[in-house]
Order: sequence, then structure tokens, then C-alpha cells
Amino acid sequence: MTVLVLEGYHGGVLQKLRKSRAKIGSMIRLTLKSGEVFEGTLIPRSEYSDPTHIVLKMKNGYNVGISLDRTEKLEVIGEGEKPHFTKPSPPANHAGLPKVAIVSTGGTIASRVDYRTGAVQPALTAADLASVVPELSSIAEIDTHILFSEYSENIGPTHWKGMAEEVAKKIANGAEGVVISHGTDTLHYTAAALSFALANIPVPVLLVGAQRSSDRPSSDAASNLTGAVALAAHADMATVGVAMHRDLSDHIIVAHQGTRVRKCHTSRRDAFKSINSNPLASYDLKTGQIELSKGIAKRDKSRKLALKSRFDQHAYLIKFYPGMNPGIIDSAVSTGARGIVLEGTGLGHVSGHLFDSVKKALKREVPVFMTSQTIWGRVDMNVYNTGRDLLNLGVTPLEDMIAETAIVKLMWVAAQTKSAGKIREMMLQPIAGEITSRTLVEAS
Amino acid sequence: MTVLVLEGYHGGVLQKLRKSRAKIGSMIRLTLKSGEVFEGTLIPRSEYSDPTHIVLKMKNGYNVGISLDRTEKLEVIGEGEKPHFTKPSPPANHAGLPKVAIVSTGGTIASRVDYRTGAVQPALTAADLASVVPELSSIAEIDTHILFSEYSENIGPTHWKGMAEEVAKKIANGAEGVVISHGTDTLHYTAAALSFALANIPVPVLLVGAQRSSDRPSSDAASNLTGAVALAAHADMATVGVAMHRDLSDHIIVAHQGTRVRKCHTSRRDAFKSINSNPLASYDLKTGQIELSKGIAKRDKSRKLALKSRFDQHAYLIKFYPGMNPGIIDSAVSTGARGIVLEGTGLGHVSGHLFDSVKKALKREVPVFMTSQTIWGRVDMNVYNTGRDLLNLGVTPLEDMIAETAIVKLMWVAAQTKSAGKIREMMLQPIAGEITSRTLVEAS
Repeated sequence: MTVLVLEGYHGGVLQKLRKSRAKIGSMIRLTLKSGEVFEGTLIPRSEYSDPTHIVLKMKNGYNVGISLDRTEKLEVIGEGEKPHFTKPSPPANHAGLPKVAIVSTGGTIASRVDYRTGAVQPALTAADLASVVPELSSIAEIDTHILFSEYSENIGPTHWKGMAEEVAKKIANGAEGVVISHGTDTLHYTAAALSFALANIPVPVLLVGAQRSSDRPSSDAASNLTGAVALAAHADMATVGVAMHRDLSDHIIVAHQGTRVRKCHTSRRDAFKSINSNPLASYDLKTGQIELSKGIAKRDKSRKLALKSRFDQHAYLIKFYPGMNPGIIDSAVSTGARGIVLEGTGLGHVSGHLFDSVKKALKREVPVFMTSQTIWGRVDMNVYNTGRDLLNLGVTPLEDMIAETAIVKLMWVAAQTKSAGKIREMMLQPIAGEITSRTLVEAS
Repeated sequence: MTVLVLEGYHGGVLQKLRKSRAKIGSMIRLTLKSGEVFEGTLIPRSEYSDPTHIVLKMKNGYNVGISLDRTEKLEVIGEGEKPHFTKPSPPANHAGLPKVAIVSTGGTIASRVDYRTGAVQPALTAADLASVVPELSSIAEIDTHILFSEYSENIGPTHWKGMAEEVAKKIANGAEGVVISHGTDTLHYTAAALSFALANIPVPVLLVGAQRSSDRPSSDAASNLTGAVALAAHADMATVGVAMHRDLSDHIIVAHQGTRVRKCHTSRRDAFKSINSNPLASYDLKTGQIELSKGIAKRDKSRKLALKSRFDQHAYLIKFYPGMNPGIIDSAVSTGARGIVLEGTGLGHVSGHLFDSVKKALKREVPVFMTSQTIWGRVDMNVYNTGRDLLNLGVTPLEDMIAETAIVKLMWVAAQTKSAGKIREMMLQPIAGEITSRTLVEAS
């Protein structure tokens, strides 16, 4: 067992740790030759680690690796906190509050750090989520349900279908708002998917995640969940959205439209941004105040939800870059693509050396759509010759739709119709706020 | 000829225009049934246009299409301005100013709008550029040269090589700064390419573009060029960068590091942003003042430029999305990829259903690198199981390098070595400020 408690350490570092009677989980103080001092919990190393460093989990939640060569002194200063997670019992529901269903699908918001490995593990159930944030019971009558527990990078069209069906069930059973806890990696793709799958929605459906796990002091899990539940219960809106921190100030949770939101930072708590649009609503955690944007869809319990939960995965998102092999387009076509979304440059361009492949795709009745890798702004293929050439080939510009929403919409549209012409037509039809036509005058 | 002057108009719209004696280029006033009034120049329609709209180029530079059905009255109110572009003669150079070479490669900065089609056409030469901005001659001794004239979406590795060689020549001939005018679509890819190709650079090399063409009132061509030349001539720096508007205030031009910059809006003049870093320098067009960031490389004419201008196009950038067909990775490998850059989600993840394809790539000695599609932030594959699994497979995380820079660097690295191991090693080596290692402590 002695070997196990120093998992991943070898050679001189292992000897040094043994001599100091350090164990995985011990609080360690390292004094460097330079005079610097580091304190943290000793965590195990993994297979891919080099053998000359000692790795500590610091109080700020980050891991730091320090070379033995640079270390003057190693002391064990405590046994560190043992992981203690005991399930609190769910708080009693208050009568008369709006009913909100929380559906859990996994992700950081439902996870905790494994102190042994320093890695984040999915752990909390939806019931746990509600229990660890007892304030929720004074905001809404909570009903929790675990649909599945999956890292969001593994979530795809099949899960979208299951989630849409689950939300429909919750609404049929009287939920006045639905909150879905979800990993942040693909939260915005799922939000777009549910925006299309849940037509004519009578109440808000808010996806929520966390950028920092709930056992870290900087966790945004509880505050995001509180904001999401408050908006789901009380905001006069009826849209699929994403509820996350607006900024670093830690007290405003905003709901972004599900088809207009994008994760724009790997780790910040305000990583999610509304693109080419404003958030739908905000909730102030300090005052409990809700603010709504103008012109958003209102709640209407009499509205009848139309579930269209099928998706066709034969859709391709291809990001253009200089020197790109046009064979990527050919190979998408040859594997039975029902459509291709190009992420072009600037106003919606790709290099002339791709034109032949684009032509071949269109000739084989595979619609080709254009978005921009600039993220912000609108494609406009009338300005430059390249854009006009691509329009003449038959490429369809997707206005101000973001690429992530476009690929999800294409998968959804491809499941609604067998016709390439109809796919093209539906891609340009605003269905869930995903697109704003450029010249309203021209469109009228 | 009567038919030609109403190019692209048909049926009822054509009749109406003829009756009013309107010609392409006429100033038209349309009064709508709603009472709204639109004035602008009549522009021709193209093949893909629908036949029921009249299209005017408004004074603000945008085109607007108005349905004939909604039109109450159509009047010709003038003949509009004829296009008049006459080349001014180049201003005399002032003695004693620093020598700056302007190399023209095309793009909006070197273009003007064709009044007949409303489209932008490349037109100005480098000499024209200098001539239309006479202020330049009081800033530097300008030497201009047209290398080629290409829309930047068509610029790739071969052009990068030509540009690097041209810059080396200009520096050998005594240029104290080089400015390259370039389309904005792929300006940042070229900036990254030149950052790697021009090692040990003694003077600044600044790429510059324009988001609005030079005959539009809102053009940023002259101001960007002035800022770029001023910084190339006078800023105490020696880096490849991109000089563009900092914000919408219209008087600050900033130089972004060539490996840290990205176009983040389709049309705004402040579209270019430094990612995970700060701009290198700024130039105030009002005061002429230059401000430099701390720690940037300084000019040194004695430094000997090392030209490494070859690129290998057998490199793939693949953006992950839910439901993605892993066959995209297989097909990249089968066409002889020397390496693959994945644009994963969040901290650097892709779905488990891609693992087999990633494994196969690595088994065939094709290095696989990870960046994040969040744009901002740093990949960290130690936090979640998916990241750790990918690390164990042998995927190499690229820290805080942006995906666009990563694919360019991979093309460059692949041309420097035949070894997959060496490619992996060089991708992690900071060469032109493109990467900052996470734990400086661990790295030391």
C-alpha cells in the first residue's frame, strides 16, 4: 500500500517524499533554493508525467509542478483535508412557488474534484444539485431528474433527441420552466439543437453549466444554477437559452438565446457570449431582480409545444484555412453529406482553389452554406468578386448565423425533409431567432 | 445599348425604370406607399437576383433592395457622380527620414468600388497607395513595390514564401521597416507565416489592410496605412505584426503580434484583436505619438535575418463539432498528412467517438495537436478525464496558441524536419511569441 499512496512518483523524487513521510493528500511546504515557498496538497502523477517534479494542488485550485533540483527543503505540514462529501437531505419545498424541473446530464456543474488525482469527476445528481444550493427551494418548487451523466464533449444528436423529449414530458407534466444542467464544452450546440427541436415552446428552457467545479472556492456552479432556476421560474419569457455569468462581477446571471450563444473562453466564468445579439434576460443574485430584453417571446401556458426532435448527422462543418486540401470537401460529399457548412473568411469567402470541389458538391445536390470564422458580423457575398463567384456557383450565405448554430440547424433540417431545395429554403428561414435577414426592406 | 444600361432588370421593374428614364448610375428617389423615402444610385442586378426589386447604393455605402410592389413613386433626381479616379503624381520624398518599403499584395486597401456593379475591384498599386496618402512622405522615405495583386482568401503557402523573400530583399537593401498591404480575410494567417519565416528579424514588418475600400467615406485605408508606416519607420520594435484600428474611435492604430492576432468581425474596422496577449504598440493619428508595450523585441540593424520561407501544405486543421464524422480525420491521414491540428471544445476535448481515428493517426506517425475553438484561453488537458485520455493517446496540447497560428506553424515546422517527433517538439517550442508555457515554474 505504501507504493500506492505515492502513485506516479519515481526515483529521487519518490525517495525524498518517502523520507519526509509524505503521502498523497498531505499538505506539503516546499522551500526553493531561490527562497520561494510553495504550499499545497501532494497529488499523484500520471503516466505521461516526467519523473523530476513534485506536483502540488494549490489553495487557488491550480496544480503546480516544481522540480526537485530547485527544491531546498520539503516539509509535511499537515494531513490536508480529507474529501468529505456527504449528501445533505433535500430541503422542503415551499408551497405556491412555480414548478421548475431540473434535468441533469452531467458536466462540471454536477461534478467534484477527485483529491487523489486532481481531476474532475462527475458525481452530483440533480437531487444533490438542488440539495447543495438550499436557496433554490425558496425560488421554485423543484423537481429533479437525472437523464444521463456525460461529459458534454460526448453529447451529440442522439442525446439532443432524448433531452428534447424529456423537456416535452416535463412541460406536459406542468413544469413552468425547465433547467438542464450540462457540461460547458458543447452547451451552446445543445442549446441550438433544443431551440429547433422544441417549437412553439410555452415556457423557458435554460441550459446551465459551471466553469469551475463545485468544490473549488471560485466555483460558479451554485450561482449559475440559482440564476437559471430563478429565470426559469419567474422570467416572463418562453425561449431556449443558456444561463451563465455575464461578467467577472459574480452577481449577474444572463440568459443568452440558444441559437446566438458561443463559448468564447476555455476557463473564465463569463465564457459564454451572445453573438450578434443581446442576452434575453438577466438575474441579479444580490437583489433578486429580473430584467428582460425588449421583444422576446412571452410565456403562454396555453401554447402547444411541437416536438421535432430528430437530427441527421450527415452534415459537415468545414473550416477553411490557407493551403487547405479541397479533398476534405470531396470526402464529405462521398460519405453521403446532406449538406455542408463552410466556415469561410471575412464576409464569406474561400480560396478559388476550392471552387471545383464546391461545384462538384452542388452538382451532386449537396447544398453548401457559408458562415464566417470571424465569429462576429454578417456574411455578405455581394461585396467582392470571390463572394459573387461563390453565389453564382450556388453557395448559400447564412447571413448572421454563427457556424456552430448552422451545423446544428443543418442536422435538424436534414431530418425534416428529403429535398436539397427544401433544406436550402429552411436554412434561410428564421426558426428560432438564429438568423436576421440583412435588408428587412428586401425581405418584405 | 439601352438594354445594357439597365443590366439585370426585367419585367415590371424594367418597364418602370425605362418609363422614368432611369439609367444605371442615376440618382433615384423612391417614395414607398408607407411614406418612407430612399435615395441612392441605381446599380445593376446580377444573375442570382430576384426580378421584383430595385437596388440602390445608398450614401452610406450599403446597397438596399426595395420591392416594386411597395413603391409609390420613382423619380430620377440626378445623374449621380461618374467614377473619376485619376492618379495623382507621387509626392517628393523628404531627406533624412527612415526608409520604409511598402509591398503591395492586393486586398481592399488597394481597391476601389466599381460603381457599375457595386463590387470592390483591386485597382490601386503600391505607388498609388503612397500617392493618395501624401502625409506618408513626411513620415518616411517610401519605396513602393507591387509583388502581386490577389484577394487574400486566395493567398496561401506559396505566396507566404514569396512575401518572406521579398521582405528579406527589402531589409537587405536598407529598409528600416517594411509595410505589406494585404486583404484582411487571411491577413492574420500570413502574419503568422511571416513571423515563423523571418527569424531574427532586425526591423518591424507590419501587415496592413482595410475593411472599407478607399472610395467610401468610412474607409480605413488611409489611416491604417499611415499608422503602419509610422510604426514601421519610428517604433523601436522588431517583430512581424498587423497594424489596424484599435477601436471605432478612428485615431489609434495598434500593431498586434503576428502570431497572436485574429480577425473577429466580418466588417468592423476594429475587427482585428490580439488574442491571449496585448498589442505590441500603438500610434495616435492625431498626436503622432507612439506607445510601446513592455518587453517587446527592439530594433537592431546589426541583427542578421534568417530566412526560412518553406511551408509544407500537408497539414490539416479540423474543427470538432457534436456528431462529427471521425472519417474526416481518417481521410486527412490517408492523403499524407504530416500533422493534424484539432480545434476541440473547452479546455481541449473531442468526443470519445473520435478516439479510434485519433489513435490510428498517431499510430501512423501523424502528430495530433489540440487547440480550442473557444478562441480565448488556454487548453488544459489535465483537468477532465477526456483530456487525460487524449494525452494518454499521445495528443499534444498547444497551450494558449490560437488554432489559426497553429495550422500555419505546423505547415512551417513540417517543412523544417522529416521527423514526427521533431515536429511535435518544435510545435511546443516558442519561436515567434505564439505560445506561453503554463507553469513557468514547471518549465524552468
